[in-house]
Amino acid sequence: MDLSIAKLQAAYRQEHLTPSGVIHEIYGKLGTGNIFVCLTPLEDLLHRCRQLEEQEPYRRGALYGVPFAVKDNIDALPLPTTAACEAYKFTPSASAPCVQALIEAGAIMVGKTNMDQFATGLVGTRTPYGVAKNAFDSRFIPGGSSSGSGAALGAGLVTFALGTDTAGSGRIPAGMNGCVGVKPTVGRVSTSGVVPACRSLDCVTVFAQSVDDGAAVVKLMQAGGLQLADPNWRPPPQPAAPLPSRQSFRFAVPGPEFLDFSGPGGLLVKAKYEALFAEAIQRLLSLGGQQVSIDFSPFAQTARLLYESAFVAERYSGIRQFLESGPTPPTVESVTSDPRLEKVIGAIIGGAGNFVAADVYDGLATLNVLRGRARVEMHKFDVLLVPTTLHHYTIEEIAEQEVHAEKVSWGRNANLGRFTNFANLLDLCGLAVPSGLLRHEAREPDSNHATAEERRRWQQLKASGDLSVVLPFGVTFLARAWQDEFLWDLAAAFHKQSGLGSGPVGHGVAPK
Amino acid sequence: MDLSIAKLQAAYRQEHLTPSGVIHEIYGKLGTGNIFVCLTPLEDLLHRCRQLEEQEPYRRGALYGVPFAVKDNIDALPLPTTAACEAYKFTPSASAPCVQALIEAGAIMVGKTNMDQFATGLVGTRTPYGVAKNAFDSRFIPGGSSSGSGAALGAGLVTFALGTDTAGSGRIPAGMNGCVGVKPTVGRVSTSGVVPACRSLDCVTVFAQSVDDGAAVVKLMQAGGLQLADPNWRPPPQPAAPLPSRQSFRFAVPGPEFLDFSGPGGLLVKAKYEALFAEAIQRLLSLGGQQVSIDFSPFAQTARLLYESAFVAERYSGIRQFLESGPTPPTVESVTSDPRLEKVIGAIIGGAGNFVAADVYDGLATLNVLRGRARVEMHKFDVLLVPTTLHHYTIEEIAEQEVHAEKVSWGRNANLGRFTNFANLLDLCGLAVPSGLLRHEAREPDSNHATAEERRRWQQLKASGDLSVVLPFGVTFLARAWQDEFLWDLAAAFHKQSGLGSGPVGHGVAPK
Repeated sequence: MDLSIAKLQAAYRQEHLTPSGVIHEIYGKLGTGNIFVCLTPLEDLLHRCRQLEEQEPYRRGALYGVPFAVKDNIDALPLPTTAACEAYKFTPSASAPCVQALIEAGAIMVGKTNMDQFATGLVGTRTPYGVAKNAFDSRFIPGGSSSGSGAALGAGLVTFALGTDTAGSGRIPAGMNGCVGVKPTVGRVSTSGVVPACRSLDCVTVFAQSVDDGAAVVKLMQAGGLQLADPNWRPPPQPAAPLPSRQSFRFAVPGPEFLDFSGPGGLLVKAKYEALFAEAIQRLLSLGGQQVSIDFSPFAQTARLLYESAFVAERYSGIRQFLESGPTPPTVESVTSDPRLEKVIGAIIGGAGNFVAADVYDGLATLNVLRGRARVEMHKFDVLLVPTTLHHYTIEEIAEQEVHAEKVSWGRNANLGRFTNFANLLDLCGLAVPSGLLRHEAREPDSNHATAEERRRWQQLKASGDLSVVLPFGVTFLARAWQDEFLWDLAAAFHKQSGLGSGPVGHGVAPK
Repeated sequence: MDLSIAKLQAAYRQEHLTPSGVIHEIYGKLGTGNIFVCLTPLEDLLHRCRQLEEQEPYRRGALYGVPFAVKDNIDALPLPTTAACEAYKFTPSASAPCVQALIEAGAIMVGKTNMDQFATGLVGTRTPYGVAKNAFDSRFIPGGSSSGSGAALGAGLVTFALGTDTAGSGRIPAGMNGCVGVKPTVGRVSTSGVVPACRSLDCVTVFAQSVDDGAAVVKLMQAGGLQLADPNWRPPPQPAAPLPSRQSFRFAVPGPEFLDFSGPGGLLVKAKYEALFAEAIQRLLSLGGQQVSIDFSPFAQTARLLYESAFVAERYSGIRQFLESGPTPPTVESVTSDPRLEKVIGAIIGGAGNFVAADVYDGLATLNVLRGRARVEMHKFDVLLVPTTLHHYTIEEIAEQEVHAEKVSWGRNANLGRFTNFANLLDLCGLAVPSGLLRHEAREPDSNHATAEERRRWQQLKASGDLSVVLPFGVTFLARAWQDEFLWDLAAAFHKQSGLGSGPVGHGVAPK
């Protein structure tokens, strides 16, 4: 069943379909694969459908009868919000304004999706609800933190799903599940009614089958959330800056020293990633892009700053009342071992206790230096093209690093964010889009040259009884704040030219 | 001698005057009243003058032969920078870009001015170099932290003087010395080469005789400081937002509950302040302004936030290396009792040690709520008119509060900043301008109704042998970021209409 907004609206108009019919068709599939944390009861959904169906056709909103899912850190009535933490769970008094705007446009909220706890992680495994099933290959992580929203789109369960993005959570799961992930400029959509990750950097994102669908949803949320006093919203510049031309634009990519695709998949896989990224560059050139070279180091250094500075204290501040409601006064140790938190989340957020107030300002000063250096580079291009991630990791590969949270180096999680972490810190808008397919038949690694990583991957795949790997390869477009419309236009053309759709079906392969 | 830019340039053009002549005329007066911390040696100045005088007239810069002073937290060769702390003193390797731009325009830097240590204070008394002499009445404070720069203009010693402004330091001394203080939008002039107070809020300001002179200097500094990578500079919005019309604009003033002029001067003085502020409102109305009412509480609450939050940690971060270079590891106690610092400065900056990293983000979240509320009010007006301060305090009144720094409540210092503190936190540009004269003959207070404050003030004036008080009354205009040109235009018309000039001479009174 094609759930795209345009197809659904056409079918509704031609009376081939009703919202109730759509809900009946999709509802049975929602409960599988740990994708949803909580579903709207079928009875409530059908009641909502009847209300919609009783409307005069001319009153129908732009999202009439469109089923969508909401990441479980965004308030959406009548369901509780958990942020993937049972102890944190509460039932909100109202839906977030961004959700409310979609409901008012006629959309149907079918449930809340799984996520990395408190939106802290890019892996999708840091959840008490089981890992959401990667749409292409359940041996691999779905990406995070909006794991369920990305996986829901990959599996074609809903028309769109809301996510959030602080350091990449709205892009990585799009890359992992082969769908589109639209991350607007920070502040464009109000984050009121969203559980804070890093309040000053958070934004609401959309996972969709197509750029057009994702952009349409962002525009509706933006209009709905507009409240001048809203502290979680940012007024757009007036007058708006002119947008670059989609027919003739400048793009940049990170230098080769930053594009290290080597990982547990081995050299063969590395070569395939490289070829896929080269193909993406070719596609941009064929769309009229002019490639320019830049110094990528300020971007890379900003990405690292996120893991090495006192910025983690904003995560603590955002849920401080909850963290400090435990029986003991909060210390690094007490937060780190808080039994209400996933072990690795406690270790990360507890780290805030290692920093004094002045450390935050030291970090912000360093960031400001990097912003200045990045500004120079950003004057050279209209859009930055990056691989959404450099790697696909298996669930086991993440688990083996994170099981002993107190010793973890965050290596693989941080690796995933190398091309996402800096975006919000440097005030960029972004869009992740499918770009190719990584097909690969695993072979036993040469025992002389293979790394320990490669050997473990091989053993894992062998143990699973299936040596073939078929995963989506995605790229992300990034541009200066408030240039979202330019990105949408460009990414839509790029996606179309790739010939790919969304999820395994849209990539012409069968999920495993 | 009229040192205004236009008069000097005309005299130079007509060859009535030479830069050397000007320096000879003014140099002897610079050393009095603790206004300067350090003077450029006369020999160096005369050398500089000869270089200028040898230039072909057509090569002369816009500030040819214009003498100016620089607050001692801004690097200006060949003099050392102290930030009013002898232990911190260093000789910079280059002048700050803002100073360099003025030198390149032909200006002559005659010396570095006194200030509250590390630009922390609005009083001008927190300095090891003696209190700079208030231009109107040496019994009263000169205001701070740019005390020497304000006092230099009040006394007519130079054409203009640079200051800095984080919470009011570029406006309070203008109000206290009856001159103009231009505080541009934060980031418009680079603060590179400036000792940080609160790095994210600091800006370079200009004290001048007239708005025209101040604005001309800001424009030259802005052009000179432009370096895309400069972390202490902010790119202006492109395209620029339209400016309000100077002929027909909306203005607001704080509600009466915020305008409490009662203080040590007693009820008589309070009534005079009120009348002077009412006169300023009338003047704006006569210039075409339309008065609108607003809720001033978000502005007032933002001002208080500065004293009650972890924001003080930015002061610590800015000079961290210096603070931590002492023999003991830094703690609240060691910073508070650091013998290298003025007692009250140590107590304030040491307070940073009471805050953990998450407290900063708590404060920023509170600020963001206030920013949202202020945004609603700011849509109602083009310019906010406030008294520059509600009070004039005597040096003794400040000293009696601050002598035991460990017990101090910061009451009077904080009072001074009630209408200045919020400006940079809410991203406003500002301009302080003379508006009237507070003339008053002190009488013995009625022993039944007078406050202890009033009685002390009476005793102080009596002991000084002079019961008459003549002080300047100033107002400040505030507008949204990047609307500086509108403020300049409006404030110039306002100043002209007041008939006042700069300092006692410009107010037609004799200094005491």
